[in-house]
Amino acid sequence: MIGTGFMGAAHSQAFRVAPHFFDLPLHPEMTVIVGRDAAKTQAAAEKLGWAEASTDWREVIARDDIDLVDICSPGDSHAEIAIAALAAGKHVLCEKPLANTVPEARQMAEAARAAAARGIRSMVGFSYRRVPALSFARELVQAGRIGEVRQARAAYLQDWLVDENGPMTWRLDKKLAGSGSLGDIGAHAVDAVQFITGQSVDLVSGYLRTFVTERPLLAAPVEGQSTVGLSGAASDERGEVTVDDAAWFTGQLSGGAVASFEATRYATGRKNGLNIEIFGSRGAIVFDLEKMNELEFYDGTDAAGEQGFRRIFVTEPEHPYAAAWWPTGHGLGYEHPFSHQLRDLVFDIAEGRDPSPSFDDGLQVQEVLDAVERSAADRGIWTTVSE
Amino acid sequence: MIGTGFMGAAHSQAFRVAPHFFDLPLHPEMTVIVGRDAAKTQAAAEKLGWAEASTDWREVIARDDIDLVDICSPGDSHAEIAIAALAAGKHVLCEKPLANTVPEARQMAEAARAAAARGIRSMVGFSYRRVPALSFARELVQAGRIGEVRQARAAYLQDWLVDENGPMTWRLDKKLAGSGSLGDIGAHAVDAVQFITGQSVDLVSGYLRTFVTERPLLAAPVEGQSTVGLSGAASDERGEVTVDDAAWFTGQLSGGAVASFEATRYATGRKNGLNIEIFGSRGAIVFDLEKMNELEFYDGTDAAGEQGFRRIFVTEPEHPYAAAWWPTGHGLGYEHPFSHQLRDLVFDIAEGRDPSPSFDDGLQVQEVLDAVERSAADRGIWTTVSE
Amino acid sequence: MIGTGFMGAAHSQAFRVAPHFFDLPLHPEMTVIVGRDAAKTQAAAEKLGWAEASTDWREVIARDDIDLVDICSPGDSHAEIAIAALAAGKHVLCEKPLANTVPEARQMAEAARAAAARGIRSMVGFSYRRVPALSFARELVQAGRIGEVRQARAAYLQDWLVDENGPMTWRLDKKLAGSGSLGDIGAHAVDAVQFITGQSVDLVSGYLRTFVTERPLLAAPVEGQSTVGLSGAASDERGEVTVDDAAWFTGQLSGGAVASFEATRYATGRKNGLNIEIFGSRGAIVFDLEKMNELEFYDGTDAAGEQGFRRIFVTEPEHPYAAAWWPTGHGLGYEHPFSHQLRDLVFDIAEGRDPSPSFDDGLQVQEVLDAVERSAADRGIWTTVSE
Amino acid sequence: MIGTGFMGAAHSQAFRVAPHFFDLPLHPEMTVIVGRDAAKTQAAAEKLGWAEASTDWREVIARDDIDLVDICSPGDSHAEIAIAALAAGKHVLCEKPLANTVPEARQMAEAARAAAARGIRSMVGFSYRRVPALSFARELVQAGRIGEVRQARAAYLQDWLVDENGPMTWRLDKKLAGSGSLGDIGAHAVDAVQFITGQSVDLVSGYLRTFVTERPLLAAPVEGQSTVGLSGAASDERGEVTVDDAAWFTGQLSGGAVASFEATRYATGRKNGLNIEIFGSRGAIVFDLEKMNELEFYDGTDAAGEQGFRRIFVTEPEHPYAAAWWPTGHGLGYEHPFSHQLRDLVFDIAEGRDPSPSFDDGLQVQEVLDAVERSAADRGIWTTVSE
Repeated sequence: MIGTGFMGAAHSQAFRVAPHFFDLPLHPEMTVIVGRDAAKTQAAAEKLGWAEASTDWREVIARDDIDLVDICSPGDSHAEIAIAALAAGKHVLCEKPLANTVPEARQMAEAARAAAARGIRSMVGFSYRRVPALSFARELVQAGRIGEVRQARAAYLQDWLVDENGPMTWRLDKKLAGSGSLGDIGAHAVDAVQFITGQSVDLVSGYLRTFVTERPLLAAPVEGQSTVGLSGAASDERGEVTVDDAAWFTGQLSGGAVASFEATRYATGRKNGLNIEIFGSRGAIVFDLEKMNELEFYDGTDAAGEQGFRRIFVTEPEHPYAAAWWPTGHGLGYEHPFSHQLRDLVFDIAEGRDPSPSFDDGLQVQEVLDAVERSAADRGIWTTVSE
Repeated sequence: MIGTGFMGAAHSQAFRVAPHFFDLPLHPEMTVIVGRDAAKTQAAAEKLGWAEASTDWREVIARDDIDLVDICSPGDSHAEIAIAALAAGKHVLCEKPLANTVPEARQMAEAARAAAARGIRSMVGFSYRRVPALSFARELVQAGRIGEVRQARAAYLQDWLVDENGPMTWRLDKKLAGSGSLGDIGAHAVDAVQFITGQSVDLVSGYLRTFVTERPLLAAPVEGQSTVGLSGAASDERGEVTVDDAAWFTGQLSGGAVASFEATRYATGRKNGLNIEIFGSRGAIVFDLEKMNELEFYDGTDAAGEQGFRRIFVTEPEHPYAAAWWPTGHGLGYEHPFSHQLRDLVFDIAEGRDPSPSFDDGLQVQEVLDAVERSAADRGIWTTVSE
Repeated sequence: MIGTGFMGAAHSQAFRVAPHFFDLPLHPEMTVIVGRDAAKTQAAAEKLGWAEASTDWREVIARDDIDLVDICSPGDSHAEIAIAALAAGKHVLCEKPLANTVPEARQMAEAARAAAARGIRSMVGFSYRRVPALSFARELVQAGRIGEVRQARAAYLQDWLVDENGPMTWRLDKKLAGSGSLGDIGAHAVDAVQFITGQSVDLVSGYLRTFVTERPLLAAPVEGQSTVGLSGAASDERGEVTVDDAAWFTGQLSGGAVASFEATRYATGRKNGLNIEIFGSRGAIVFDLEKMNELEFYDGTDAAGEQGFRRIFVTEPEHPYAAAWWPTGHGLGYEHPFSHQLRDLVFDIAEGRDPSPSFDDGLQVQEVLDAVERSAADRGIWTTVSE
Repeated sequence: MIGTGFMGAAHSQAFRVAPHFFDLPLHPEMTVIVGRDAAKTQAAAEKLGWAEASTDWREVIARDDIDLVDICSPGDSHAEIAIAALAAGKHVLCEKPLANTVPEARQMAEAARAAAARGIRSMVGFSYRRVPALSFARELVQAGRIGEVRQARAAYLQDWLVDENGPMTWRLDKKLAGSGSLGDIGAHAVDAVQFITGQSVDLVSGYLRTFVTERPLLAAPVEGQSTVGLSGAASDERGEVTVDDAAWFTGQLSGGAVASFEATRYATGRKNGLNIEIFGSRGAIVFDLEKMNELEFYDGTDAAGEQGFRRIFVTEPEHPYAAAWWPTGHGLGYEHPFSHQLRDLVFDIAEGRDPSPSFDDGLQVQEVLDAVERSAADRGIWTTVSE
């Protein structure tokens, strides 16, 4: 495990829990966690349940007793670590975004392809795909239950930057974070729409806006991995916000559908609202991550007068992953999809399959986001994703 | 029209509007409205659109140019007026509750039966039956779409008495109002459950409670017909509340189902929440009057994993009454069911049918409420409705 | 009244009903309705309650006993009728869109300004402004209750074109309808956002899509004014759909906010969903026309841990227009805002005020839509509304 | 750990997870799990993460390396095990219901009181108290935020017995399960209402109904601990259902409030709906376990016209237990409250406090349920809980 922050904690919970609910063909061992600060990393190892702590990821990936490297550090470090780990013959699970730049992502995808040829597996952590309601949404759509997909609406709405006096964090610094809402949460929206519809975003027209252009610097340096991390006393100095606060874009999809996207951390009152609506010629799907155990499904083939959005409580044995947990009606929480992700990765490794989403999938999402940035920089003009 | 208050206004709107949306076989004319105070009744005639005003209902029901008497006055006056009107050969529409006492209701039902033999029609105003969503609920249940009905839950929740310093009104005086929440809104809950399920409440176990036992008297007398009517300056004197503030009862139904009922004006935050849930062996129905254009329908025969409550927006041509109004998706308001009620009554009169709900239906609801009062007075013991 | 279709019916209901709920300073008389077909217009007069029928609008607007002309005919006729009526000294209420083209709308706005100088009033019918929940939303926002507005999301979602075998109608013909979803329902979304925020859309980047490019022609000609009007037998011939089926655009607002818009008739399952979310620095507002009596309000100044979207049932005496109708908790329907619109217009006429929204407001919305079309035709490039 | 079924799994997850999210003063070790079948218990030990397996609980509670006994076996075994464990000086966590009969529960409560005098702690597992939304509801109510509590409505609605051909299970056998919906889920409703309001149910009037009186026996014996457990092939024989399928009761509370209760496994479409509404003189609280991360709060002191139910997403640092988990907006699942329960128990043990809910609390709930049964057996008559 590389990284001791929010994602490190979420992934650790998966390693701790998944083996007790799924019958895994391999038994993961929580060997070593890597951070930058020795004391903090030792504390994280104890808190999160790793046998050892290290500050040297290079040494760790060289170890014989390491088979899988789980990269949960900030995006600017992904490429170097992942490529090295793959080269060392380790399977790699890499948090999204795959990288902070398209060139880096491209190198990673190449490395992953090369490694795959040697039986080394890699996966990018778009964990929301494995929210049972979203997996089930994909099943319904891929089975043709909503007909031909025509329109998708996806908005990822958070509000943790609403207060203009909230401090600078690494997530607002383009150098560290790559981008703002676009890459952090817009990436999830893009992946979810593509995953459910099976269509790729090919052309985009986008716009980015920074509402609050400078914020108080923290007196103490902000620790890199802390996500909400609005801790520490604010100083008198102000730092420049160099990423987008919000992003809007429209996408033309490979199968003829049109999707609108919106990503923001200024949607006052929305805490973690990934809202997805998919409209097809015979039905529709509606999802909101704030109600992650529910999926709304409109079946246009129901009798006239009896059609309506069904609220399906996605906790039944028929639903993806659900049977492993609790009886019908007992919902899952935020972190359970990380267990699903780990479960699938372990099976893929054991059975010699390439996992999904792959680094190529991660690269493609980066390319979409890059095209949005290029469009936004060029008067909103329609911009091709793959050049 | 007898009565110039809230119900008088609602029914007047029906006379004014229904002929412009439904093709009626007879053309209602708004001839005369009757109240107790000459000046106020004249003002009501002008405001509500009646050609004449009168303070003498006996004179009015004797007129040859009157065919239909619509009784919207308080419950203690219903019996005398309705019986006289039927005797005079006038069709009668009588607001619920049919009467304040079972003996009065029984006399009215007898009078209605006798009049029916002479071709004179009578109807009691349980207008919520004609909310399209509730009419549609009955259609679904009667068509067997939820299978055998096992359980019903009905709660009528309002909150306009929450403030213990709100003044006395006629609705809190047993002599004028007959009962409190039980008769005023509990009656609607009973009628709705019986209407949808097609089963009658045969046995009840009930409880009544008055939370606030005395309230400030208004300096000026409260006008009888004002429903919310919390107007007028409060005086220093306090009057005794002699009706129930809230009622709870369980009913055993003729077809084997069990229904729970709750009626209260102390449900803080609930403004006009008539909540109905009907659970059957193959499905369920859920309704809330605060969302009167919606019906939730759970179809237990949908494929496993795809079952869920469907929110049906009851505004489609297939839905009862809906085609007469606006295109799909354009909802109705509180008063539209009064137009539906009038429409059906006019058709019944023109085509020589006895309307539904009849005075017998109104009587039966009174008997249920009476049995609740008897049970409540006798330690909650199970009490037979019809003796 | 010019026009006998859906809007004619809705406006007629306002003339019929408003005087009975609001104390108007002037008494509207329903003098004459104008249509193209004599027999149909006569039938409409009877159905809708107009004293006379006519097929000659020019003659009608010349009559001395006509003070107000209410234009409910299709958009391509608005300019000629409105300009003539204003010239004849009649007050004019004109349905939206003000016109099918910006030049026409501009002429109308000029005519209205000239007429205003002579005391002649004109209003464009963006009736949703007078849905109490939306009027109340504006009050809250204008009072600063959500702070500085940063983002708005507005989507008008309908689904009545989902079936690709549904027939051609005048609404799909650019010559008659001007545009498709953009002008028909997108106009409402633009007006609502501008009305609530008090900011104008100044720059747009847009995209239009026609999903189904040809549809069966009806054997019988489709009557112009029928809105849902998917009646008549389909023929073997197919006609070309020349308007947009769906529109997406992003707008930069005069006060610094950003708004996203989406208008479509292909949102399967959405019947009349005008969804509006306004996010400010201290709070937020959420509205859905399918729940037109509700407004969600998030107050960011509530205590930490107690913040949440409040569902306000907009039926209390404190709410705009509500006191005139029914007690708290008794909702309104689709057509009530037309009564509010008429009420305000009558007061404006009586008291010598220029109504709002004015023809200038209608023109400005047309200009926004026109800019969207220009942007859509030019690769989505950011386009200035006023040139 | 005694028991290897559904509750055993849920509690095991707490032991596994809680130490990684809460800083506990003591470190729980998962020493030994006890079941009836050696092979199955060994498998459970491996699956659930216990170091050893045993089939002899007496031997286990005699061990020196055991400090805490967690009883998750069926209700008929609770008394014997708990009393023995307490006598052996072990702290005890006992799943609800405390016992199948009041006399047993009374003995357990006595044993717990005696043990407490010796510093031995005991707790009954009403885990829903520690759903953050319900803990927060109690905080709000106890702080007077909804004023004086007048009415409560609590319904626990499940539907897993809807199919009349579903097989017999131990939960339908009075000898094993004690009672049906009443004890299984009605107990939760009673505890929740008492917990939130701080008032005890003193008098009850109740009714019980068995809708399906016999069901197919499984060819293979049903394993005791399986909760949903509708597994195994049905045989031709039928067994008698000896417990209630549904229960309804009204309660008079110690502080003057009235509460209605309903518990059923026949509420088609409701999967795990514990619906609670608490109405007070100044506000209200609404909760549904199917949306366990949300609490609705109506503050009657908000400005007139601005009042409404707030949907609070109970995931903020201010909310009970929430700060230990994920950032705001990231919800918890069904099993998290078991971690909260364990956390509190461990602190209580370490700091020498008696935990809550105590065995006395568990006994009192049993007494309420017993009074309901007595009332139901005696014509619904009001029955005193404590004699």
